[in-house]
Amino acid sequence: MTPPISKRSAVIAIDAMGGDHGAEEVVRGAAALSLEPTYVQTVLVGDGDVISKILSGVRHNPERISLHHASQAVRMDESPAQALETKPDASILVAARLVKEGSADALVSAGNTGASVLACAKLWNKIPGIRRAALAAVYPTETRRGEKDDPFSLILDVGATLDVTAEDLAGFAIMGSAYAQLVSKNRRPRVALLSNGAEAGKGPPEIVAAHRLLTEATDLNFVGNIEGVDIPRGTADVVVCSGFVGNVVLKMLEGVHGTIMRLASYAYKERLIWRAGLMMLSGGLNRLKQITDWEEYGGAPVLGFDKLFIKAHGRSGARAITNAAKVAAKVVDADLAKQIEEAVRRFDARRAA
Amino acid sequence: MTPPISKRSAVIAIDAMGGDHGAEEVVRGAAALSLEPTYVQTVLVGDGDVISKILSGVRHNPERISLHHASQAVRMDESPAQALETKPDASILVAARLVKEGSADALVSAGNTGASVLACAKLWNKIPGIRRAALAAVYPTETRRGEKDDPFSLILDVGATLDVTAEDLAGFAIMGSAYAQLVSKNRRPRVALLSNGAEAGKGPPEIVAAHRLLTEATDLNFVGNIEGVDIPRGTADVVVCSGFVGNVVLKMLEGVHGTIMRLASYAYKERLIWRAGLMMLSGGLNRLKQITDWEEYGGAPVLGFDKLFIKAHGRSGARAITNAAKVAAKVVDADLAKQIEEAVRRFDARRAA
Repeated sequence: MTPPISKRSAVIAIDAMGGDHGAEEVVRGAAALSLEPTYVQTVLVGDGDVISKILSGVRHNPERISLHHASQAVRMDESPAQALETKPDASILVAARLVKEGSADALVSAGNTGASVLACAKLWNKIPGIRRAALAAVYPTETRRGEKDDPFSLILDVGATLDVTAEDLAGFAIMGSAYAQLVSKNRRPRVALLSNGAEAGKGPPEIVAAHRLLTEATDLNFVGNIEGVDIPRGTADVVVCSGFVGNVVLKMLEGVHGTIMRLASYAYKERLIWRAGLMMLSGGLNRLKQITDWEEYGGAPVLGFDKLFIKAHGRSGARAITNAAKVAAKVVDADLAKQIEEAVRRFDARRAA
Repeated sequence: MTPPISKRSAVIAIDAMGGDHGAEEVVRGAAALSLEPTYVQTVLVGDGDVISKILSGVRHNPERISLHHASQAVRMDESPAQALETKPDASILVAARLVKEGSADALVSAGNTGASVLACAKLWNKIPGIRRAALAAVYPTETRRGEKDDPFSLILDVGATLDVTAEDLAGFAIMGSAYAQLVSKNRRPRVALLSNGAEAGKGPPEIVAAHRLLTEATDLNFVGNIEGVDIPRGTADVVVCSGFVGNVVLKMLEGVHGTIMRLASYAYKERLIWRAGLMMLSGGLNRLKQITDWEEYGGAPVLGFDKLFIKAHGRSGARAITNAAKVAAKVVDADLAKQIEEAVRRFDARRAA
């Protein structure tokens, strides 16, 4: 699960002011990364005094961390559009600008998702041929995949584009496959459309049309439609859907561990022997928590822009931030945007043919 | 969980040829019901020889069961439209016709869902003011509700109408609320729209518009938008969504028990003490299976037609069929269609005002 070491010096801009835990965990994550045997550089963007104070209290390698001051910050509960309008010096905007201008190669933030995606949309360009960006999420599955035996799949879009066309869905499939190839070292990720039946004709018109596009015009490992029950099983490595459906599904997946725990508590109340059984199992349940725990996986990519943004979960601790920055560096090193651009060009050529 | 006893003689037409277990379980379900202290009459529709032979082998009250022969049957895996076209004497069509003509009051089937809904759409009329029918499903939740302390919520649509307008969603809300009131004896069911955020402005245009309609033009107990994570929690008693989203969600919910069992098996392999704990918990896990088991709840209503159809799960055993027929009788006795018609009239009047 630990991303491999990046070989050259990618610079990752990190929004230090975002996330439920405030600057503390974010700065600790960057500090821990600076001590690892990688060449990844981080730029912590946010309130200079706050960041310096936290840094002075934790072990870190000062040659691998720099600080870029931003006087404002977007709160987790703020309206994205309004926040960006009224706070031109917000850390997320400043960080996205550093990437745009080439001072950094990619962006990581655990802050307000809407504001982060909007900042990228305002400042960055789309990859040629891609009309709509997608926010992807990783989710734990029962089956594993790729050289690294990754126990997670990718689902996209989960909220950037609520209404989609067949072409948008095809674009998501191309981008998701390229990302999964890279991050899970999975040579031929199984790509599927989420629908209400396995047959090619199932689903609303845009799903039916996307099924045809993916079959006829891409060289992806497209395995057809999957249904809701296949998501936690891990039948597909990349699940493609509209941002609306993806968001509903993602939030259901996030709730699974909580539901299991609460259902288990019924057993707990009922009988002494069940209670004893639960106590003996507690180590196993913690392992289960790990399997279903987002923090393990660093973050979720926003795909479709010429620059990379990795959105870390709002609840991210230091370890999740470290992982997100490492994944970002790895993706930068492999030049994902160029790979996507080439795949889209092949797609367009096959459609025209 | 047992539906109360019906007070007058509702006649329920049952498609005896549908379901994964064939006629055997369906006929046994009707036989068991005939021995219960209710006045419910059933008409078993299907192959006369097959049904007679099964009936002759099980205890039943012949005064409460009759038989109506149909020479054809739709298989579970058949294409609905084609099946109904090529099989005019299919048991599901014959049964729906008995209801249309007044020889029976409601229809129960565990057979091919698409063919069943299509048969109703072909033969029955919509309730005045309702433009699109909805297939609802009951699903188990952590919290309980109503006088009967029902541990399930209703979600609709789950597949009858893939693309919906705001008006369709409002109609689903009105119908779902009326049904939940009746079946769970829940005076003010909490009705919610499934969206990608709790705020009124969240979601695609039809959800945003439906939110406004439900707030301004209905007297429902509308609690606003809920997110995916709220579904298994049971935050709402009636969850309203498009047939496409509902179908994806329902199939994820159906998979939860399987996922829990498979995740538990990781623990099982890992350590002896976890294995012992799991064995001690096995009674609790069976209880959990019950909580997440569809068969307990009889069936799912198709709402929007002037007649009632209760779709029993394809896997239904005899007990599920018995329950489905009892629920159908109860809904017939309360004249659900008339209640929905009146609620829609109030809705239209408030919109016009």
